[in-house]
Amino acid sequence: MGIVVPDWLGRQASLTPDRVAIDAPEGTVTFRAFEALVARAAGRLRGVDVRDGERVAVLARNSLPYAALIHAVPRAGGILVPLNTRLSRDELRAQIADAGVRLLVADAAHRGVAGMLGVPVLGTDDLEGTLLPAPERVNLDRPHSIIYTSGTTGAPKGAIVTHGNLWHGALASAVNMGHEPGDRWLCVLPLFHVGGLSIVTRGAILGIAAVIHERFDVGRVNAAIERGDVTIVSAVSVMLAQLSEGRDRPFPSSLRAVLLGGGPASRDLLERAASLHIPVLQTYGLTETASQAATLAPGDALRKLGSAGKPLSVTEIRIDADEPGVSGEILVRGLTVTPGYYGRPEATAEALRDGWLHTGDLGYLDEEGYLYVLDRRDDLIVSGGENIYPAEVERVLSSHPAVADVCVVGIPDTRWGQRPVAAVVLRGSATSADLLTFCRERLAGYKVPDRFVIRDELPRNAGGKVLRRVVRETLDEPPSAGL
Amino acid sequence: MGIVVPDWLGRQASLTPDRVAIDAPEGTVTFRAFEALVARAAGRLRGVDVRDGERVAVLARNSLPYAALIHAVPRAGGILVPLNTRLSRDELRAQIADAGVRLLVADAAHRGVAGMLGVPVLGTDDLEGTLLPAPERVNLDRPHSIIYTSGTTGAPKGAIVTHGNLWHGALASAVNMGHEPGDRWLCVLPLFHVGGLSIVTRGAILGIAAVIHERFDVGRVNAAIERGDVTIVSAVSVMLAQLSEGRDRPFPSSLRAVLLGGGPASRDLLERAASLHIPVLQTYGLTETASQAATLAPGDALRKLGSAGKPLSVTEIRIDADEPGVSGEILVRGLTVTPGYYGRPEATAEALRDGWLHTGDLGYLDEEGYLYVLDRRDDLIVSGGENIYPAEVERVLSSHPAVADVCVVGIPDTRWGQRPVAAVVLRGSATSADLLTFCRERLAGYKVPDRFVIRDELPRNAGGKVLRRVVRETLDEPPSAGL
Repeated sequence: MGIVVPDWLGRQASLTPDRVAIDAPEGTVTFRAFEALVARAAGRLRGVDVRDGERVAVLARNSLPYAALIHAVPRAGGILVPLNTRLSRDELRAQIADAGVRLLVADAAHRGVAGMLGVPVLGTDDLEGTLLPAPERVNLDRPHSIIYTSGTTGAPKGAIVTHGNLWHGALASAVNMGHEPGDRWLCVLPLFHVGGLSIVTRGAILGIAAVIHERFDVGRVNAAIERGDVTIVSAVSVMLAQLSEGRDRPFPSSLRAVLLGGGPASRDLLERAASLHIPVLQTYGLTETASQAATLAPGDALRKLGSAGKPLSVTEIRIDADEPGVSGEILVRGLTVTPGYYGRPEATAEALRDGWLHTGDLGYLDEEGYLYVLDRRDDLIVSGGENIYPAEVERVLSSHPAVADVCVVGIPDTRWGQRPVAAVVLRGSATSADLLTFCRERLAGYKVPDRFVIRDELPRNAGGKVLRRVVRETLDEPPSAGL
Repeated sequence: MGIVVPDWLGRQASLTPDRVAIDAPEGTVTFRAFEALVARAAGRLRGVDVRDGERVAVLARNSLPYAALIHAVPRAGGILVPLNTRLSRDELRAQIADAGVRLLVADAAHRGVAGMLGVPVLGTDDLEGTLLPAPERVNLDRPHSIIYTSGTTGAPKGAIVTHGNLWHGALASAVNMGHEPGDRWLCVLPLFHVGGLSIVTRGAILGIAAVIHERFDVGRVNAAIERGDVTIVSAVSVMLAQLSEGRDRPFPSSLRAVLLGGGPASRDLLERAASLHIPVLQTYGLTETASQAATLAPGDALRKLGSAGKPLSVTEIRIDADEPGVSGEILVRGLTVTPGYYGRPEATAEALRDGWLHTGDLGYLDEEGYLYVLDRRDDLIVSGGENIYPAEVERVLSSHPAVADVCVVGIPDTRWGQRPVAAVVLRGSATSADLLTFCRERLAGYKVPDRFVIRDELPRNAGGKVLRRVVRETLDEPPSAGL
């Protein structure tokens, strides 16, 4: 049995009832009010027979009800399955089936698609039930969420995120970044990502405010920072680039950290941020490590350009290589590492060996122990903070009758970091426009390749494996070394 | 098996090697240098055959080597037994025997008495061995220390303090008080108390500096605060009184917290502190809870005068009473609570029931959940932050041939909070001076009663139990209500 701690939100509502818990588009609520909101939502879920261990999916934009569901689903006994709103209907159906979801909570914007997914739907405007008060304590071994993420195989797997993963992650982050009771942490990342969801749980664990925007809007974020309304921002490079674009004066000192995830940032961007006194903390994190695994202190940002820093206090990182200083697969161990993938004992055994998570990412540690991530997984494409798994896009294209062979790679993109491009070998007749339409019908928009380049054949190694790096080089300049 | 985390000090030395770890009379050392110091001391302990689980006692003043031993003893596999330097030789012998100590480390000031305790002695100036590097990880269930404390029975018992008690206490304290990487925490409390020792472990866990003074010297502490040299101070009321005495201007804002333990403070003192802008956090803690169990935020100091605040985030507190708002025994549960007393299964079973520590202290929770401690245990005397157990003093006096009956109670004292006074029934001839000499030979100085009042008999209840409250009332005015 794992360790047990007082229920986060219940405890915080009792400790600091009048402190702001959530500042969302729908309004600002104190911990006392947020606790009541969660208690009613949890009661509503119980009322529709959510039982212990049952998976409850949410398909919604960032909102106050979504933040409440992040606490209410576990309180009702369920496990939260936050769905990516950009997925196609088929993709959503597959995740709902995989997780054995029996209830879907959707907001007004997603009621249409939600109704077509074959499970009962509850509206986020219909979360008023009998008060279900916070339990005294919560066992940290208990799963909190199942968040879908794909390995390089392209098959989305549901990473189990336990209460302990979130708890230890929150405390380790506080130790690493410092913790001020007056902190206000801006969440513009989607709540269906671990990077967004964990801002809400961290708020309850640390007793600080989560400031939730529906989505990233550069004007609104700039204004919030200018007003001194947020002290910490979680962002990906494309957001930081927009925030610093055209800006000529530093941000106020009330902004004490920009936690920058979703892949390495360019030297240009970091230098521009430094010149604007933006305290950037570059971080390396995964769904499987409940967000941050390593973070670079602002003071090291330029000295250790391109590094993701050092592991958090509960995390160990090592490189699977024969010699120190040499690159290899990044392995992570510690209290924030997932216990495994839901319903996938083989994938779990493959990823977790002796407690070490095999990330599939390549990197190295320098002589001072700073982590450098060379590739977000060998062939993973990170576009605007979203992961695009080439194999998944390839699988869709391969199902087109005219496609004989296909390889999807990421090409550097100043705005999005990377964008997917497909090299295709045809066996029938098809135009780029045909392939585009075919992909659009089957994939989330951000996964659809920007270009389709027709080839006579794809370069392969002796074992028959496509040489992705060669494909990429023939399509564009290689990305600059180390970044 | 408990949870496992990276070794605190080893990790911190790798994360922030150049940050100050310890600022002590012997000098200032970075985490890199402190790690080397600890590694050599641990190697030295291994060299003299300290084995896994072996108890290693320390009898020394606050110093850099003492701080190193707090990490080195567990690293060598041992369990630290920090001895109160003010104990008599007989008291020291009893604790050494009880804990089965096989090695004693003593500083120059205590080599004399150390040599008379029947165990091999190592000097704190002789801690240079082969480097024993930090282990990768430490199991939080592992005992770190055995710290002696007495119940009202007066028999000192060794409370086991695990690595987890210290770890969770450090993180909970950071969440409660905020955490700034530049914090410098002043330790003027003895390192043999959990309140001092935990400043050193917290430093490694949170990566902040522990500023160690050999003892409380009001001039030196005032100067350190004035220089902006410390941001947090752990103190007891008598120290705070001296710090604020005769002071006419506020302390600099670099002093962000004075954590005030060791019993309730008077209204006068708190009002004076408030007028000097001293951010006082009153706390309720025990050896058995590895220091803080509840803490009062500075903003509540006067509104909730006399309260010890609310429980920390990993701690639950309830009152063993039939109705809410009524006083009863204070019970504490959570990750900082000791697993028990060393070698005392019965005392452990008595103190820990269903995970709840029965503190023996009386108190109540107000309607907002704030804890008020009414008595530091029914008859415990707290003098200058030191616990004096009446039964222990009574046992000594009872062994005097002329003493027929005795009752020791605490009398309010403006300087020390309380001082012990003995009501004695004689059966032979003895003067107060005789009894004073007798006590001085057998008890630590601070435990020796200030006065010996001769009575014809002691008031007893029907069951034959001495009515301490009646004795106290006949000796002095009762303490003011609630304080």
